[in-house]
Amino acid sequence: MVMIKSIVRPEKSKAVIDNLLEAGFPAITKVPVVGRGKQRGLKVGEMTYDEIPKEMLITVVADKDKDLVLSVIMKSARTGETGNFGDGKIFVYPVESSYTISSGFKEE
Amino acid sequence: MVMIKSIVRPEKSKAVIDNLLEAGFPAITKVPVVGRGKQRGLKVGEMTYDEIPKEMLITVVADKDKDLVLSVIMKSARTGETGNFGDGKIFVYPVESSYTISSGFKEE
Amino acid sequence: MVMIKSIVRPEKSKAVIDNLLEAGFPAITKVPVVGRGKQRGLKVGEMTYDEIPKEMLITVVADKDKDLVLSVIMKSARTGETGNFGDGKIFVYPVESSYTISSGFKEE
Repeated sequence: MVMIKSIVRPEKSKAVIDNLLEAGFPAITKVPVVGRGKQRGLKVGEMTYDEIPKEMLITVVADKDKDLVLSVIMKSARTGETGNFGDGKIFVYPVESSYTISSGFKEE
Repeated sequence: MVMIKSIVRPEKSKAVIDNLLEAGFPAITKVPVVGRGKQRGLKVGEMTYDEIPKEMLITVVADKDKDLVLSVIMKSARTGETGNFGDGKIFVYPVESSYTISSGFKEE
Repeated sequence: MVMIKSIVRPEKSKAVIDNLLEAGFPAITKVPVVGRGKQRGLKVGEMTYDEIPKEMLITVVADKDKDLVLSVIMKSARTGETGNFGDGKIFVYPVESSYTISSGFKEE
């Protein structure tokens, strides 16, 4: 089981969530965040914006589904044909176990 | 050391936090999030709500305290006698180390 | 590769971010949170405040950069000469892999 934490453009977040649902992964948590990547923010004329609003999407999936989920997120979050700086990052973390609160059911 | 990340109903969050304090675990971080589980949100008549407000509660505890903390959270976050869909999820992650900023003290 | 998640005073967050940039680590995600530590919140006269606003700063770095990044965060987030309760905590987690959405580039 892995946690997949994606930091995406807010305007792409709905497409990611909809496409994950369609691919069979409805469970998701969304957190509004601000951030910047290796480009150190956004330059518009003389102004630099270094706190760019993003959305963090968190989903936990079985190891066997990891590559599919990564591919859905990557395709849905990318802008244009070839992607652009600022399209975001995906981090994959190990998860030890998860529990459903209502039933107490444990997954490992 | 493990990080326990719980996604609970906002109206249950205070009970979880109070009961963790009483059980000896006062340190907690709370983040407002939105999410949906395997039920794909909430249907009320013809409307579907797929962004349900939840609260994410994060606490880091020693391995030996994990089962106690999980049990306190699970009991405090559950609705009704037997729990309901939407009561939330708990994820357990490995933590490599933690530091107290004021003292520099490291725990492993 | 590790994820470093720091929970710091909001008024210290800019110093941490600026000093990380100067040290060569521009990429960061910031989330406003509330929390309390082992001191169970803040006592002012007869009032207890147990939901203290903090900022969670998330950065993912190579293993070899971990100690430098920890030291920058710790120095920048500490108050006064010797630090005070409430200066915050830093947690270090293993990361399995990360992806740049625009290029699809994978780091392990």
